[in-house]
Amino acid sequence: MSRFFTSKLSGLSPYTPGEQPKDQQYIKLNTNESPFPPSPSVAAAVQGEVEKLQLYSDPECTRLTQKLAERYGVDPDMVLVTNGSDEVLNFAFLAFSDAARPLIFPDITYGFYPVFAELNRIPYTEIPLKKDFSIDVQDYLVKGKTAVIANPNAPTGLALSLAEIEKIVAFDPDRVVIVDEAYVDFGAESAVGLVSRYDNLLVTQTFSKSRSMAGARLGFGIGSNGLIADLNTIKFSTNPYNVNRLSAAAGVAALAEDAYYSANCRTIEKNRQMTTSALTDLGFTVLDSKANFVFACSSRIDGEELYRKCKEKGVLIRHFSKERISGFNRITIGTEAEMQAFIQVVKTILEEKEK
Amino acid sequence: MSRFFTSKLSGLSPYTPGEQPKDQQYIKLNTNESPFPPSPSVAAAVQGEVEKLQLYSDPECTRLTQKLAERYGVDPDMVLVTNGSDEVLNFAFLAFSDAARPLIFPDITYGFYPVFAELNRIPYTEIPLKKDFSIDVQDYLVKGKTAVIANPNAPTGLALSLAEIEKIVAFDPDRVVIVDEAYVDFGAESAVGLVSRYDNLLVTQTFSKSRSMAGARLGFGIGSNGLIADLNTIKFSTNPYNVNRLSAAAGVAALAEDAYYSANCRTIEKNRQMTTSALTDLGFTVLDSKANFVFACSSRIDGEELYRKCKEKGVLIRHFSKERISGFNRITIGTEAEMQAFIQVVKTILEEKEK
Repeated sequence: MSRFFTSKLSGLSPYTPGEQPKDQQYIKLNTNESPFPPSPSVAAAVQGEVEKLQLYSDPECTRLTQKLAERYGVDPDMVLVTNGSDEVLNFAFLAFSDAARPLIFPDITYGFYPVFAELNRIPYTEIPLKKDFSIDVQDYLVKGKTAVIANPNAPTGLALSLAEIEKIVAFDPDRVVIVDEAYVDFGAESAVGLVSRYDNLLVTQTFSKSRSMAGARLGFGIGSNGLIADLNTIKFSTNPYNVNRLSAAAGVAALAEDAYYSANCRTIEKNRQMTTSALTDLGFTVLDSKANFVFACSSRIDGEELYRKCKEKGVLIRHFSKERISGFNRITIGTEAEMQAFIQVVKTILEEKEK
Repeated sequence: MSRFFTSKLSGLSPYTPGEQPKDQQYIKLNTNESPFPPSPSVAAAVQGEVEKLQLYSDPECTRLTQKLAERYGVDPDMVLVTNGSDEVLNFAFLAFSDAARPLIFPDITYGFYPVFAELNRIPYTEIPLKKDFSIDVQDYLVKGKTAVIANPNAPTGLALSLAEIEKIVAFDPDRVVIVDEAYVDFGAESAVGLVSRYDNLLVTQTFSKSRSMAGARLGFGIGSNGLIADLNTIKFSTNPYNVNRLSAAAGVAALAEDAYYSANCRTIEKNRQMTTSALTDLGFTVLDSKANFVFACSSRIDGEELYRKCKEKGVLIRHFSKERISGFNRITIGTEAEMQAFIQVVKTILEEKEK
């Protein structure tokens, strides 16, 4: 920290993204990317924008907003497009929580929530997941606290049902509930259908996972027009041209290819099932994931050790040092070949360890 | 404002970007875009990234950071790439100013500075420009205040000399001076050469203007490694993947084409000279611009009226309602043909008004 850094943020611990080593080619199962490229029409859409790159992008992101509204059956003023879904989450934390309406979220969840809270200096409480790593809905039936729930949760992969989400949203109409659905397309139920009935619900999603566009940085929020207007106030006070031309065009093209992306999601679900079975056969405990990753641990090997040995053998998975989950690893679901290679690596590691 | 919006930001007045009407084709001289497309190699670079779009962008933006460091003769840890230069400015306001080190900037300058200050709830003082709209260097020779200076300034186009900037930077080594050089490539002197000698200097620049990439959203800051490390703390607490793959690749390609972009800047300077002469001949007062726009007023016509009548005739220019400059318009310098068309429109408007 330089002597110029503001004392009010001196305690800030930034988020640590998954490693992106450049020393060799890895089977990369550590950052929940899709193993499939974007649909072919995305390339054409991007190319069509390059010759207009000297012109600012549309600060209203009109076309993409419209297409998302159509896709999700809401009005365009109920949609905000952002530079990745991290941005809409940051805007929402800033807009809808403060000392009078502190934040609550699980102790084990997306690691960015406490960082956003610290950045915006909002008090927060991390509520322990149950012993089985599921969310206890009762914990969120409290008044006056802005609740943030990743559904499915990360890194557990466990999902609440739509009825459970609705119970939380309906409990207190005077506080905002943010449902982060980054991974919803891999088998969980979306709460988007609730936004027209609950003006305190904000659902966030992303093009990064199911739509194969982590590199384009495209996320969005869907909520009542009141919430979206507030988020626009933050956006136009932060970075009005937050979404670039190329990514916006890529997003529009991707939305016209639902069949392609749905088929990819079904393939991921199949590979997830295969991976879960194989790990279970090897003695792992694997949580019941509805996401494009699984969260697994085994008494046969320590979490950090498995992570490290997989990396030595060319497979990257994600290990978190947080005590409660330090026995686990989060493994992104890739192609069938990648998952078979991963399982083979795990087998070899266990054999070498136990011989 | 919804009932959920935090009271701490209830006074926020968002920035208003220049209008982007979609009702017809205009000669667009209102948002300081380049009239020239990006260099041809940019398209190829972007295309090469599309097939990797499913993978996250590099959170360190390593390649582009390296190329910028080479281009500006600094170490890579003295460079931060952001999603437009608005982002690096926002990060810098948040990192380097607070109640103990309030902000100072001119009363007439980039309209986003007070918005960032309000957003981050930092006290600020707007220091009146001199009568001739130039910055009085003496005003910035104060201790303990974070100073922000657009050089050249917008919307005036007037520039301070490098010696004047250095005087401000050197005056108090314990406060940060932010020099916003969005328009520096059109004839002003850059302060980048000072960063290795003054660890309290942050220079920000953008690919939006001289490098024909407003739609790509690419900005950067250059400063001491201490300042850049602090800005990275903010970035990794906000949006670690803030720059998308396509724009980063476009930036690398553009940096290899300096000759193309320099030639464009010289053309803009020539067209600026022509526009200034023609407006002066029509009785306008035109400030001595070093940017890709001119700021002009005339006793023959009110600023708002000229803006409105130009728009009726298919030419967009930018009018600001702020009282001190409401007689002026800011006119982006486009191609020679565009500027001749603009001058013709102004002539017609004046003739119609005075006949």
